[in-house]
Amino acid sequence: MSHSLQETIVRIPPLDDKAMRAARARHDQLTKPQGSLGRLEALSIQLAGIAAQPRPRFKQPVIVTMAADHGVVRQGVSAFPQEVTPQMVANFLHGGAAINVLARHVGVRVVVVDMGVAADLDAHPDLVDRKIAKGTRDFSIGPAMTRDEARRAVEAGIEIAENEITRGADMIATGDMGIGNTTASSAIVAAITRRPVAQVTGRGTGVDDVGLARKIATIERALEINRPNPNDALDVLADVGGFEIGGLAGVMLGAAARRVPVVIDGFISGAAALIAYGLAPAVQPYLIAAHRSVEIGHRATHEYLRLEPLLDLNMRLGEGTGAALGISLCVAACKILDEMATFADAGVAEKSA
Amino acid sequence: MSHSLQETIVRIPPLDDKAMRAARARHDQLTKPQGSLGRLEALSIQLAGIAAQPRPRFKQPVIVTMAADHGVVRQGVSAFPQEVTPQMVANFLHGGAAINVLARHVGVRVVVVDMGVAADLDAHPDLVDRKIAKGTRDFSIGPAMTRDEARRAVEAGIEIAENEITRGADMIATGDMGIGNTTASSAIVAAITRRPVAQVTGRGTGVDDVGLARKIATIERALEINRPNPNDALDVLADVGGFEIGGLAGVMLGAAARRVPVVIDGFISGAAALIAYGLAPAVQPYLIAAHRSVEIGHRATHEYLRLEPLLDLNMRLGEGTGAALGISLCVAACKILDEMATFADAGVAEKSA
Repeated sequence: MSHSLQETIVRIPPLDDKAMRAARARHDQLTKPQGSLGRLEALSIQLAGIAAQPRPRFKQPVIVTMAADHGVVRQGVSAFPQEVTPQMVANFLHGGAAINVLARHVGVRVVVVDMGVAADLDAHPDLVDRKIAKGTRDFSIGPAMTRDEARRAVEAGIEIAENEITRGADMIATGDMGIGNTTASSAIVAAITRRPVAQVTGRGTGVDDVGLARKIATIERALEINRPNPNDALDVLADVGGFEIGGLAGVMLGAAARRVPVVIDGFISGAAALIAYGLAPAVQPYLIAAHRSVEIGHRATHEYLRLEPLLDLNMRLGEGTGAALGISLCVAACKILDEMATFADAGVAEKSA
Repeated sequence: MSHSLQETIVRIPPLDDKAMRAARARHDQLTKPQGSLGRLEALSIQLAGIAAQPRPRFKQPVIVTMAADHGVVRQGVSAFPQEVTPQMVANFLHGGAAINVLARHVGVRVVVVDMGVAADLDAHPDLVDRKIAKGTRDFSIGPAMTRDEARRAVEAGIEIAENEITRGADMIATGDMGIGNTTASSAIVAAITRRPVAQVTGRGTGVDDVGLARKIATIERALEINRPNPNDALDVLADVGGFEIGGLAGVMLGAAARRVPVVIDGFISGAAALIAYGLAPAVQPYLIAAHRSVEIGHRATHEYLRLEPLLDLNMRLGEGTGAALGISLCVAACKILDEMATFADAGVAEKSA
């Protein structure tokens, strides 16, 4: 199957109405007051529509965590030094990071992808090497990447989604690692949602007030210099994005084209979703927002995408940590739909007329 | 060990400060920006204090789901007929209810207790029979139960918690089943929080506007006739409570006395928590509010108890369904604390000064 962006976009189908109607009808026969499981019911109906199955079962979710570096860190926008990106990739591969703990907790695999870490990484059987370049260029003085690099990043993500689905993945969650990537994400959110930079820029890993002011000024300068076209998502990605952000956008498109639901994580995954949505609005119903991050721009992202996050736990780590918890809720919702007894099965009286 | 109410109450210890300090210190060394896992971090620190262990591990949570009937249903306050209570107990024992599905999903056992179902239930190896009476009396015309019955309900719950903990349970979640029990719970919430009945009374399993007005009027009449003393939780329970609500209050006290965390479910468990807190304010730090129910009185309950629910998924089923999801978050939080690598372990650079 082709991994080209244009061919993938046109393959994204609408959700399956028949499966959704069947799921809804079954919910109303299950031994509970109608609608009493709230968002779990709505979620399972959406997942039925995505998978085109009235009682979908998800046995093999995977979390795709993409790492890359950002030239803009030289402007002093992050609280952590750039060498943390490869160090955290090594931590992922050794199983010691938060995402590893939560992935084990929910029983899913983590696929770690080098989309553009600014270091030579040792080969590792669990590391997928799709490095576009050793970090983006500093976007406060010019574009982060070329348009060709932006397209290659997205197409690498499409290919990774395709490969995982071919190996059996039936639900894909997104995660990220990259020192400086909240700066890139805030720039994308400001460009696409057309909100003022200060309204969508937070402290990332923890910059102080001076650092935050510098971060906002840097993004404002980047948007002035690069003038990303909000109606051209590939242009936005090239101007102020990151390789992992482009890759994650591709994962979303690749999954949707194969009717596989995408559980999106925090702020960086949200920026990637804006890029994916800009490229193909049809991706929207395939996206499940796992949680609302502390990063202030996340709220604007969800509003723009018309997504309501499942969890709100004051998290701001990324890596896919919120998405891991979201996977568990998605699977639970579908088990409710699939495994509960009906009123008829269980001999339980229904609601009085 | 005695299951008497008075002896249990005095045994509830404060949380262990030393374990909490150790947990907090460890969090700040783990490979993530400090505080970036938000409520998961706070939750694991609370659980460390409850268990008096710097890195608590919860291997055997159980859900205690208590069922009972309510004489007030003859006033037409519920959308479902009373025979649904024993029918749903049978459904629990056959594994077809929502709580069974979610308990299996999170890998925990459900203990089903008959605290006062208005029917003779067939014996079943998984059914614990602690029936106080075949349903409460109609509290709109007099007290729901005697003070002695109220005490026996609470002490039955204490004993059940003790028994489960002795068998290895290290975390207890609460759940309920009982047609009419949102009416009893709203009456308890109104009595203890001193809010107007209409502000804390919702549609339960789904009464219409006329049913809701009747439910509110019934509770108002019950409070006028019985005049429960808000400073005497056993009096409130006897006047307008339910046997399952008393039992769940006892479970909370019994667990706290043994340093076992209690994950409380929805509105009925919240009413039980108000009773437990009225009997012993020291129980408060042992309570973890799993979710915010659609029932409007739940918000007032959490405010009164100074609890912030973990989830808000528009659920209103009870049974322990929200608590099952809450258990998974509690266990995840403790795994983060226990299993993540430190900056030193992983050779990751820390935040710049």
